[in-house]
Amino acid sequence: MKTYFDCISCFVRQALDASRMITIDEDIHEQVLRKVILLLGEMDLRQTPPAMGQKIHRIIRKLTNNPDPYLEIKNHFNNLALEMYCELKQQIENSADPFETAVRLAIAGNIIDFGVDGELEQAKIEKTIKESLTDKLDIKSLEEFKAAITKAKDILYLGDNTGEIVFDKLLIEQLPLDKITFAVRSAPVINDATMADALSVGLTKIVNVIENGDDAPGTILENCSDEFCQRFERADLIIAKGQGNYETLSEVDKNIFFLLRAKCPVIARHLNCECGSMVIAKSSTPIML
Amino acid sequence: MKTYFDCISCFVRQALDASRMITIDEDIHEQVLRKVILLLGEMDLRQTPPAMGQKIHRIIRKLTNNPDPYLEIKNHFNNLALEMYCELKQQIENSADPFETAVRLAIAGNIIDFGVDGELEQAKIEKTIKESLTDKLDIKSLEEFKAAITKAKDILYLGDNTGEIVFDKLLIEQLPLDKITFAVRSAPVINDATMADALSVGLTKIVNVIENGDDAPGTILENCSDEFCQRFERADLIIAKGQGNYETLSEVDKNIFFLLRAKCPVIARHLNCECGSMVIAKSSTPIML
Repeated sequence: MKTYFDCISCFVRQALDASRMITIDEDIHEQVLRKVILLLGEMDLRQTPPAMGQKIHRIIRKLTNNPDPYLEIKNHFNNLALEMYCELKQQIENSADPFETAVRLAIAGNIIDFGVDGELEQAKIEKTIKESLTDKLDIKSLEEFKAAITKAKDILYLGDNTGEIVFDKLLIEQLPLDKITFAVRSAPVINDATMADALSVGLTKIVNVIENGDDAPGTILENCSDEFCQRFERADLIIAKGQGNYETLSEVDKNIFFLLRAKCPVIARHLNCECGSMVIAKSSTPIML
Repeated sequence: MKTYFDCISCFVRQALDASRMITIDEDIHEQVLRKVILLLGEMDLRQTPPAMGQKIHRIIRKLTNNPDPYLEIKNHFNNLALEMYCELKQQIENSADPFETAVRLAIAGNIIDFGVDGELEQAKIEKTIKESLTDKLDIKSLEEFKAAITKAKDILYLGDNTGEIVFDKLLIEQLPLDKITFAVRSAPVINDATMADALSVGLTKIVNVIENGDDAPGTILENCSDEFCQRFERADLIIAKGQGNYETLSEVDKNIFFLLRAKCPVIARHLNCECGSMVIAKSSTPIML
């Protein structure tokens, strides 16, 4: 997905929100804003929004002299989700359709996105989980997704955020574990999950986890490691979580199922759905739910 | 009032909204955005927000090759307000306190601001008028404002937007007409009122109307004509309508009463009031209502 004109003011707002979250030093806020504005002046709109997000967060990490500004937040949301894990696991197992419930919860977990919402609180996550169990979900897409998993021999599951990966774990536990490889970013960016997070929530104990070789808040294949790209190429089904993975892979010719909540108006318009919708979209054929 | 970091993303969004309203040509939208971003890269944050607004709207008028892009909107809202005039006039005259009702309506009229809300509709204006009659209004400030008018010998009333100036006319008709001079912008900017609008709504028939010599969406004294500045200096009371006049004059040492609706979070924080509040604020002593 290209960068839309509407994304530009959002980049500026996000850069300010992120800087304010990391430091109260207003000189740093101004330095970040000025660098981001310079960057926007020369941006290539054919690039995807996470390509700009990657550059913006590199600037923020450099100017705040902090290689992992969201570390505390990441640990907090991993732990919060782990505290919910047992109850949610039971909920899945006691439900009429455990696969559907697990998919709904995996999409609910995508609310933990500090790229979009810098003021997320526990109450909002709990509300989202509750709503996700009854919110509109296209059952036809769900069935297609289920059939694709059954048919697949080699599944690559692209993770998105910390906390959210606990919800991914709940879904993965309903899938054929031996077919699955889970991928994380190679270095910190916003609250996206890295190998440390996969280890911390126990994903590494149940499936093979690999790094993608990049620090974009999405999957920009041309920047990913050769090893990751080969793994991506070899998979006959990709499960891509979240907005960033959708934005970077929506035009890639591959058998991909995107699971996300459409959290901004631009994405919602691109997916032809309402803002806030739970989305299962097959690559090249975005489906409104 | 200086430009806050939060204003920067808002400038970008406003520039895009305004370009889209004027033309569907996406090349122009991109040209406007790129010029505005260049401008933001070198902006002086000590300047007031209308100083940037002035530059942005000069860019938009130049790139769209349209010296008055809001002309149709301006005429529409002047006419809409004129259609309401007789009923509102009666409402004022039949009310327990005609001065208070007229002040409330003059503040309600400040909702017609295309710098803040590019999608304003008639229903919102009607709702705002209705609410303004009962919304919280600081009676102490209202009394101070009334006393200042009685005491003043020479009042300069700084107008803001088209449509809104009909509401100003309703207030002015409750004031000593011979003491009042009404000021408008000298050239089109957003939907701000110019001499053509003052003529069209009949303000020129009841008071002396002057131009301020500038095309900023506020009153930047250093850019205004010498004639206007002398008139400003001579007045012993200034009534300044709207956000733009507040932003440009809030630190000027003069006997000014600002009447406005606080329509954005930055202004609301500066005035220590809630977003959407009806405000009467005396210069140098912003009062929460």
